[in-house]
Amino acid sequence: MAFDYVLERELAFNETDMAGIAHFSNFFRWMEIAEHAFLKSLGMEPVVQERDQFWGWPRVRASCEYHSPLRFGDRFEVHLFVKEIKQKSVVYFFRVRKREADGSYTAVARAEMTSVYAGFDVPSRSMAALDLQADLLAKIEEAPAELMKAARNQGRA
Amino acid sequence: MAFDYVLERELAFNETDMAGIAHFSNFFRWMEIAEHAFLKSLGMEPVVQERDQFWGWPRVRASCEYHSPLRFGDRFEVHLFVKEIKQKSVVYFFRVRKREADGSYTAVARAEMTSVYAGFDVPSRSMAALDLQADLLAKIEEAPAELMKAARNQGRA
Amino acid sequence: MAFDYVLERELAFNETDMAGIAHFSNFFRWMEIAEHAFLKSLGMEPVVQERDQFWGWPRVRASCEYHSPLRFGDRFEVHLFVKEIKQKSVVYFFRVRKREADGSYTAVARAEMTSVYAGFDVPSRSMAALDLQADLLAKIEEAPAELMKAARNQGRA
Amino acid sequence: MAFDYVLERELAFNETDMAGIAHFSNFFRWMEIAEHAFLKSLGMEPVVQERDQFWGWPRVRASCEYHSPLRFGDRFEVHLFVKEIKQKSVVYFFRVRKREADGSYTAVARAEMTSVYAGFDVPSRSMAALDLQADLLAKIEEAPAELMKAARNQGRA
Repeated sequence: MAFDYVLERELAFNETDMAGIAHFSNFFRWMEIAEHAFLKSLGMEPVVQERDQFWGWPRVRASCEYHSPLRFGDRFEVHLFVKEIKQKSVVYFFRVRKREADGSYTAVARAEMTSVYAGFDVPSRSMAALDLQADLLAKIEEAPAELMKAARNQGRA
Repeated sequence: MAFDYVLERELAFNETDMAGIAHFSNFFRWMEIAEHAFLKSLGMEPVVQERDQFWGWPRVRASCEYHSPLRFGDRFEVHLFVKEIKQKSVVYFFRVRKREADGSYTAVARAEMTSVYAGFDVPSRSMAALDLQADLLAKIEEAPAELMKAARNQGRA
Repeated sequence: MAFDYVLERELAFNETDMAGIAHFSNFFRWMEIAEHAFLKSLGMEPVVQERDQFWGWPRVRASCEYHSPLRFGDRFEVHLFVKEIKQKSVVYFFRVRKREADGSYTAVARAEMTSVYAGFDVPSRSMAALDLQADLLAKIEEAPAELMKAARNQGRA
Repeated sequence: MAFDYVLERELAFNETDMAGIAHFSNFFRWMEIAEHAFLKSLGMEPVVQERDQFWGWPRVRASCEYHSPLRFGDRFEVHLFVKEIKQKSVVYFFRVRKREADGSYTAVARAEMTSVYAGFDVPSRSMAALDLQADLLAKIEEAPAELMKAARNQGRA
């Protein structure tokens, strides 16, 4: 049973803005990339297509708190935790940390995202939330409360 | 004294994803574009540079709730409200609404963003939060509570 | 018969990079936005869906030469010209010009893009190039050679 | 002496568009990411800052030809070649190939990008092209003509 995943990245030039730091909208893309990598690491496809039907994970909520900036070339981790498993959705918590040259970490951001399992019918352009599938439920579990608490408190004195 | 602004947009092809809808990360870019247009409408520059110093509005928090999808070509409004004026930051509330062919509106999203007024020193790559400037405070005010309540309740029965 | 279109834009903060200028990849998005606005100005939809079939304009070639940078807040024009109408594709030429405070223009870039008219079959995930439709051919024509020459020579002594 | 570099990537959901394929503007970002990874692999920093001065590689030209689409989850290579070393710039050639399940490759695109070595003066917001540095010239060379020819002909019968 899995409850977390760590995505490692390096800040790309196209992710910077004129303030010399990562544009705040990028964090939401990284959250999605971490979510998809987590599902794939469990052998689950994040998007499935069968003829004119799709199944995927549209978001109903996303939020991020920014603690310190990322700059071009910074190496950082997007650490995903399964915060809550609901009937038709999964709530993920994320902490983003920068790896410093001395091996220590600096808190960069913490975030949350709720992804709903949904089916898309292409011809009618409609989508509907669905119950989480048994094969997913057999593979994921909520992260332990102690771990979540520690993750939430990163970067706090 | 201003407390709101309406940005009108049309969903571009490059803002769609393979689910045929606006990618959720775009909403954060639109919030920033609305914020900057709001400041400009008041005669304030969102980013000021003097030699090797910059002043701007980095974000410390951003969140969005998604109610219904936007598709290619949809015309929509990003309605910004000044929710709270703090010593060094402004909290904005946003509602995103799609304009239907019959003139009615569909609730698409509601969001919030906290922008801190900050100075950037290029040589030292440091930034610091600053007190809001008097000329800004002379131009903006918090939106009336009744209006905020109505905006927050959009799309609710 | 139409052969050109002018898109007006203002450089957004999220389109800048740490060099303080528009990231070069944005020009390709603006070319697409101008192409779609051109088609819409003629009453043509850039993307059409009927049940599980789509019709649109995938690109087979795109190029851009950069002459001078765009900065945050710069107002600029993306001027589209129909350079060549082929059996299954349209070749567009673009010049990008910045509008200076004194009303003059500075050459920013010139670009070219070839869009193929194509049908997408969702169930089989296949796409095929198609002959341009009669209703489009009744509305567009190639820009006059003299005009194209002048557009190509913008910003040259 | 180095003349090429291979960047491996997997197509992210946020890089798709409603046609179900990679948006054509992404290829230009990947070219830049490959360029920067190539320079870093040689021990060169793509962007250097000293107080209020920057040195980097703005583009003066970029082009791409698209042969076949990339879809969500596709694994692909961006293969960079040093095509030409000029006094103040480097011309890169790229081929993009999709790795199929059976280990074979499908030609996806070929592209070219010219990057100028330039200094940026932040206070005056000016930039100027500079001669390539000796330490770079000691590390890179133009790819052999035979190799370039083969790369250019990928996907051709």
